[in-house]
Formats: sequence, C-alpha cells, structure tokens
Amino acid sequence: MSGWVRIVGLGPGREEMVTPDVRAVLDEATDVIGYIPYVARVAPRQGLNLHATDNRVEIDRSRHALSLAAQGARVVVVSSGDPGVFAMAAAVLEAVEYGEPGWRDLDVQVMPGITAMLACAAACGAPLGHDFCAINLSDNLKPWALIEKRLRLAAEADFAMAFYNPRSKSRPEGFAKTLDILKDACGDDRPVIFGRAISTPDQTIRVVPLSETEPEMADMRTMVIVGSSQTRLIPRDGAPLIYTPRSVAS
Amino acid sequence: MSGWVRIVGLGPGREEMVTPDVRAVLDEATDVIGYIPYVARVAPRQGLNLHATDNRVEIDRSRHALSLAAQGARVVVVSSGDPGVFAMAAAVLEAVEYGEPGWRDLDVQVMPGITAMLACAAACGAPLGHDFCAINLSDNLKPWALIEKRLRLAAEADFAMAFYNPRSKSRPEGFAKTLDILKDACGDDRPVIFGRAISTPDQTIRVVPLSETEPEMADMRTMVIVGSSQTRLIPRDGAPLIYTPRSVAS
Repeated sequence: MSGWVRIVGLGPGREEMVTPDVRAVLDEATDVIGYIPYVARVAPRQGLNLHATDNRVEIDRSRHALSLAAQGARVVVVSSGDPGVFAMAAAVLEAVEYGEPGWRDLDVQVMPGITAMLACAAACGAPLGHDFCAINLSDNLKPWALIEKRLRLAAEADFAMAFYNPRSKSRPEGFAKTLDILKDACGDDRPVIFGRAISTPDQTIRVVPLSETEPEMADMRTMVIVGSSQTRLIPRDGAPLIYTPRSVAS
Repeated sequence: MSGWVRIVGLGPGREEMVTPDVRAVLDEATDVIGYIPYVARVAPRQGLNLHATDNRVEIDRSRHALSLAAQGARVVVVSSGDPGVFAMAAAVLEAVEYGEPGWRDLDVQVMPGITAMLACAAACGAPLGHDFCAINLSDNLKPWALIEKRLRLAAEADFAMAFYNPRSKSRPEGFAKTLDILKDACGDDRPVIFGRAISTPDQTIRVVPLSETEPEMADMRTMVIVGSSQTRLIPRDGAPLIYTPRSVAS
C-alpha cells in the first residue's frame, strides 16, 4: 500500500472551473485536508475522511497530510485557487524540508488550479494582458517594509499588480497604506479593480480610478488588480471592458 | 439569433487541465478561431467551423471573431494556457476598442485557463509560492530597454520571476542578455527552472543554478522560472522539490 499527497487547487469557487485532473484525485483520495470552507466544497462519500481545520495552522495541516501518506493514505490537500500561489503548496513543501527524513521520498505532487487573479482578470477583460506582478499584502509572515519596497519597485517597473489578501479585520491599516503608496508612486489615475467572491453567486466587480479608491472597498474575499500606466478602459452599456495592451510604443 | 465571443484558455497542453466551463462553450460554438496548434486541439464535429491561422496575426484573427459574432455566430477564440496572460484576450479587446462601434455591445467574455507558469511551477513544487512577477521576454511589441528595466527592478524587489516566450529563432539574443542581467543583478546563485512542453508527453524539467544557465537551455516551448533569494531546493531521489517559502524573516 503506497500513499501519496496531492496538493490541489479548487479554483476561485465555481465548480465548473475545477480541472478534471483535480476531480480525478479527489475520487481516488482516502483523506482530504484543508481549511474549513475549502474542505466543505468536497462531496462526502463512503471511505473518504474529511479533515477540516481552521486558518493559520498550515504547517500542522501539512505535517498531518504527510504523516497520513507515510502510513499509506491517499491524501489530497485542498486550496482555493491555485495551490502554488499564496496557498498550501509552499506550506507542505516546507513541512517536507524540515520534517521526517522519510517524507522526502513520498510521492508528493502539486496540481494547478485557476488562481483568483486570473479569474478576476477574466471577469473584467484582460488587465493582466501585459507584464504584471502578484503580491500578498498580508504582513503576517513578512515585514511590512518589504511589502512597501515591492510596491514602489512594481510601480516604477510599470507592472500591472494583483494583490492577494488585501485587508482583514486584524490588519485593516496595511491596505490603506498600500493605496497611499500607489497614489504617490503611480503618478496617474489608472483603473483599480475590486473583484469580490469571483465566480460565485456573490460575485461583485467594481472599477474605480486610483484617486477615488478607499481602503473599505476591499476585504479578505476581495482580489485587487491595479492597472499599469497603459491599461485601457472600454466604456459600453453595462460594465466596461478593461485590458492592458500587448504592445508598448518605443 | 444572438452571437457571442468567448476567449478561452486550453491550459498548457494536457486535456485534463481544460476546465468544464471551457469544454461547455466549445460544445456550443459554431466557430473556433486561433493559432494552428491550438485549433488542432479542438475535435472537429458537424456544424463547427475551425479557422486556424498562423502566428502574429492576432488582430486580424480578433476582427474576424468579432465580425462573425456580429453576424450571429457563437465564436470561441482559443489560446493555450490562460487567454489573459500574453495571449488572445488583450488582442480581442484591442480589436473591440478600435473596431466597429457595434462590437462594444457584443457579448464578449474571457474564460480563464491554467497558465504555463502555474503548470510549470506545480510540476516542480511551488517556486511561485511567494510574491512574483511575470514578464514576456519577446521584444516584438515592446522596446528591449523596458524589458531590461523590469528585470533589474524585479531583481531588486526580490520577486520570483516567470518568463514567457524566452527565446525564438528570430531573436536569440534577448534571453542571453536576460541571463547576463540576472547574473549581475541577483548577486547569488538561485535556482532557475527550464520547463519545456509542460503537461505534455514531451515534458522536460531542468533545474540549473543561475551561474550555470546558458541561453540555449530555452526555446519558444520553454517556460523559465527564476527563484527569489529565498527559494529552497529539497534534494531527494529523482527531481528535487523547489519552493519559495511563505515567510520572510524580519
């Protein structure tokens, strides 16, 4: 009996965005491990153990997955979006590196999913159609000074920017500082997209010029995308289409 | 009869990475438009017109899609990967902005897919597990000086970096310059991943320290990911696992 771990992405919320590859390993699993709302997306069935845990216990959860697999279990660790983008893949691999020596020989694979920034971008056009960066705005695991440095350099590089975890109740001030930095560094009034609960029935998308953005426009379910200096907005009936052109003039 | 355009991502190559949403619109389409190898991935059927065109005609192809939809056709524009990342979505929206006024009222939607950098990252672990940027290294549509500026700023920001279109026969020198810039700017020997034909039967993954990279290691089918200063390599039997940790010490 040979166990394995698959670290999979369930996409942003809509079931039709889950890949057949991910469905297939969920069908083969003996155990599913993850944060409560993501495990809740997996249908219970005979012979499948669902282990739902709270936020901020990523390393415990990872060690649990690896130890079950070492005992022969077929373990799926679920993330929303893509597991490799600010989600469980890096946590599981950290647990491999610093855990039991035998864990390195386990069959551990990461399976991609539709990450939030790409679902959000698609929902309003193609704002990430040119060079861009992705930054996690939470300073739970890194110093705020590094976030600020990256924001200023990203603005100087004229990247479009996608922000994960922009704002939570426990750290409401970071996103306010982020907007202040961008208003100072960008020097223009580019569009900012607030995409909330993307691809779910609760989806809302709001497009606001940078100068009119306010911190309260984002929460933990919001993906924020800031256009580059080149990003275009096509007005029309209903929501505008937003895109960043493929070309930049010499 | 009301036409529409769906700009969809077929993922990196493996059919089990195509989302059910994308399968569903392909089943409803009257016309499929795209670059020859991507249209070749769509199964022919009665009533479906396949329009395969060569590379570098993105705007012609987009105008064709929009004019067919304006006449009532249900048109799917196919890209590999995600259509919003260096692919057809920005081209179609550019054609909307500068095309027939009536095209703005067409039902045009972008549907996300698994983009190459995330499939490549997953195949070797989680090198994009922390803040990162994505840069198209082709200077067909932007000045080389802008690419160079972005590379230097990305290195200063200590982003992991994902490079699309690193090298082609018609512009072999850009990737050589890219590697020289990184060797100069990064100041350490971080891992560089060369992922070729990811998720297909031809897949190869090669991990090389930055100091030992050579331009010939990449071609147009290669995705290149450069770790940040924090990126870790876990040696083990077979290919190493590579990840960028979630945390950065203060």
